[in-house]
Amino acid sequence: MDDEEARRRFAAARLAHLATVGKSGAPHVVPIVFVVVADTIYSAVDAKPKRSNRLRRLENVRSHPAVSLLVDHYDDTDWSALWWVRADGTGRVLEADDPESARAVDALTERYSQYLDQRPDGPVLAIDVARWSGWSSS
Amino acid sequence: MDDEEARRRFAAARLAHLATVGKSGAPHVVPIVFVVVADTIYSAVDAKPKRSNRLRRLENVRSHPAVSLLVDHYDDTDWSALWWVRADGTGRVLEADDPESARAVDALTERYSQYLDQRPDGPVLAIDVARWSGWSSS
Repeated sequence: MDDEEARRRFAAARLAHLATVGKSGAPHVVPIVFVVVADTIYSAVDAKPKRSNRLRRLENVRSHPAVSLLVDHYDDTDWSALWWVRADGTGRVLEADDPESARAVDALTERYSQYLDQRPDGPVLAIDVARWSGWSSS
Repeated sequence: MDDEEARRRFAAARLAHLATVGKSGAPHVVPIVFVVVADTIYSAVDAKPKRSNRLRRLENVRSHPAVSLLVDHYDDTDWSALWWVRADGTGRVLEADDPESARAVDALTERYSQYLDQRPDGPVLAIDVARWSGWSSS
């Protein structure tokens, strides 16, 4: 799969998995909803329910900016249909009052109508993708 | 969600995401099929198609044994139904001739009929789970 196709499949997906590294050096993985703008992936964090798991990804990115994200297709009945695409890049934490953050939340809200009822008002995670790659079993 | 429920949901899932850390310190995430035996998660790697992506997780575990795995449920039409469970632990790479490896492949083959046609004959990744945890939106 070429880079362009990998990027296309990634951008079209509804869910990705974000891997980060903590201060201790241990990895951490969370599911995220996101939007791709050019070669940057944006994901929002709710400010209100300050759950530790939601903040951990931000702490991790601040101490270890290298991150990796994966979108994959699994079909239990057809292993010949499997594929995945990966985005490797560098994370930045944008505060809610950053203009780039506001634009990202606009794009997220346009993509996920669920956000219309409760616009994300916390920090935004921006990942500048250095490499798109992918694999398909067929 | 208590630890026992987190472990139960993890063990019942068909797919998990494994996060590891490479020599450079960058994270890596891959989808895996797996089986849980007591508090150890086993996943097989095919020996034949020596794709770099399949081996990278093993190299990572050898240099950074701390790993994290996630099972999650996403529903684009109902964000109140979301949940995830996580297993944090330590990875070990078992060679194909290790008796523990053979038992793990037996358990994997019993769980995934897809393996009946092509029994995995490469190394097995064993993750000894130190902590099961989970979160549910409802």
